[in-house]
Amino acid sequence: MDNQLKIRIITQEDLLKAGCFNVPEIIDIVKDAFVSRSKNEVVFPDKVSVIFDEECQNRINCLPAGIPKESVYGMKWVSVFPENPSKYGVQNLSAVILLSELEKGFPKAFMEGTLCSNLRTAATSAIAAEYLARKNSKTIGFIGAGEQAKTHFMTMKSVLPSIEICKISSRTQKSENEFVNVMSKLYPDVIFVKCNGVFENAARNSDIIVTAISGQEKILRGEWISEGSFYCHVGGLEDDFSVPYKANKIVCDDWEVVKHRTQTISRMFKLGLLTDDSIYCNLTELVSGEKEGRSSDDEFIYFNTVGMSYVDVKVANHMYKKVVDANLGHEVILQDRKMFEIDTKFMIK
Amino acid sequence: MDNQLKIRIITQEDLLKAGCFNVPEIIDIVKDAFVSRSKNEVVFPDKVSVIFDEECQNRINCLPAGIPKESVYGMKWVSVFPENPSKYGVQNLSAVILLSELEKGFPKAFMEGTLCSNLRTAATSAIAAEYLARKNSKTIGFIGAGEQAKTHFMTMKSVLPSIEICKISSRTQKSENEFVNVMSKLYPDVIFVKCNGVFENAARNSDIIVTAISGQEKILRGEWISEGSFYCHVGGLEDDFSVPYKANKIVCDDWEVVKHRTQTISRMFKLGLLTDDSIYCNLTELVSGEKEGRSSDDEFIYFNTVGMSYVDVKVANHMYKKVVDANLGHEVILQDRKMFEIDTKFMIK
Repeated sequence: MDNQLKIRIITQEDLLKAGCFNVPEIIDIVKDAFVSRSKNEVVFPDKVSVIFDEECQNRINCLPAGIPKESVYGMKWVSVFPENPSKYGVQNLSAVILLSELEKGFPKAFMEGTLCSNLRTAATSAIAAEYLARKNSKTIGFIGAGEQAKTHFMTMKSVLPSIEICKISSRTQKSENEFVNVMSKLYPDVIFVKCNGVFENAARNSDIIVTAISGQEKILRGEWISEGSFYCHVGGLEDDFSVPYKANKIVCDDWEVVKHRTQTISRMFKLGLLTDDSIYCNLTELVSGEKEGRSSDDEFIYFNTVGMSYVDVKVANHMYKKVVDANLGHEVILQDRKMFEIDTKFMIK
Repeated sequence: MDNQLKIRIITQEDLLKAGCFNVPEIIDIVKDAFVSRSKNEVVFPDKVSVIFDEECQNRINCLPAGIPKESVYGMKWVSVFPENPSKYGVQNLSAVILLSELEKGFPKAFMEGTLCSNLRTAATSAIAAEYLARKNSKTIGFIGAGEQAKTHFMTMKSVLPSIEICKISSRTQKSENEFVNVMSKLYPDVIFVKCNGVFENAARNSDIIVTAISGQEKILRGEWISEGSFYCHVGGLEDDFSVPYKANKIVCDDWEVVKHRTQTISRMFKLGLLTDDSIYCNLTELVSGEKEGRSSDDEFIYFNTVGMSYVDVKVANHMYKKVVDANLGHEVILQDRKMFEIDTKFMIK
């Protein structure tokens, strides 16, 4: 009996070198994931979320999901320790992904997870923008300038090439500078405008507004929003209740999941300020064609994303295949033989 | 900001070479885990169990748990695909373990998990035997001769050095031979008796009976059990209802968990043949001294184990430290810098 168990270990560098940071490709894969979901082809158990410190909200989430038809089941393991940057000078977030095949049930890959996680989030928002933003959108405004904001700019620009102006606002000048430095090299034809921390300037007169900022603060206000615009809510509590109130349509990636969280519209739901009927539809219904997206140029449409673990697993599995094809990552023999087939000299009675 | 993320990859070979297969040490660690549990120091969310095929019961379990006081939270990921041996000639089980530290929340180790899992199961049973078997137990009988049986023999012999005779029964002659070949080298003073597949012979007149066999079959019968013996139930359904009926005491590792599973006593509970009052206590209560174990030489005591994920995490963390001390395993840089600090040439727009 061959009992050797191998797994491929994949770093972020492997993913990048294998060409996994491919915006149009990831958008297609995420769209496929939503199609699979609408056909009931995904396994999607509840996440396990443990908060280790109520005060600073240190937490680790374990998000298992699978697509049996594609012979894959896996898990994203994400930590969020908000005080890391101030306390230790390191990032607040880490993510790893484990994938198993479903023929023999063996684990096949263990990979860095923030690349996949960031890309799938931004791709989800871009798919929403494709259905819900005005086709001729020219101006995009960001509240928050971190990795999520940068990735969102790339995916949004991919689905809406009409974007010409990008306004960027952040709590620090440094983040705005970094955003513009990196993005202006990648997109020399786009005009990047730093807002020097004035969030209102990023939001006013923008066709698309994206909030992707840490901290639980109601920054975005209803009166800053222009008629006909599209708002993409990525984080937790980032907007005033006046924003959802103003919306002609509210769309979620998955309202049943969103309603149990602590995002703006989840809070409003718990307070009785919103009901199930306030939600126009889920993104899956737009992708499957069951619902139409934007129906007029005047609508203000609100999109709320929480992130779906089956999308992570779908994207991670796609990345895994690319890494294998590129002969990258490295295989580790987790187990060579069964325990008692090995020299018993290692066993202490 | 230093955003390098490293993780140590640990194979079964690394674990063995680092001296992690250390029976007395693991027993102590598992005992500590039960003490932590009795002091409410463990985080122990529900496991996520997904069955991919109802007929052949292919499944993957995701079992997160942590001990915040020891700054560790982790997860065991176990697959059980019963048809693997017959269909592909490979083992039916695989397990990997992921560990994170709780200062910054970063993952610190990814390791092979069957070694840890087997040892913690066998150590749990041995701790039960320490409290519940007769001190002068001489004869142990096994139904099932696989890895669990072998590991159980080692842990049982460690807590009850009085064991002199070991009877071994299995569905195949080959397994019985393998058991005796390996174990007689490790324990030259013990008499090993092959039962040639006659399970009854392994059970009759034994001071300790262990069932550790795959397949859901009521093998062990009440009439085979001697007065004063200790029975350790490791698998699923392995004994007739007459066995728990005969018991003077039934002890579990955790009855609240056991009662929702599909083991013999769980089934009897669901059928109304047992109640909460039928259970004498949990193992934690014996270890903490709240309850006394065996009170006379005549009692027949039944122990049922399901396995607790906080024990896996405790043992895995102990093993991790030994591997680090021995400078084994290998460190992988999962992420060197943040995504957008890396050359944008890898990014496809």
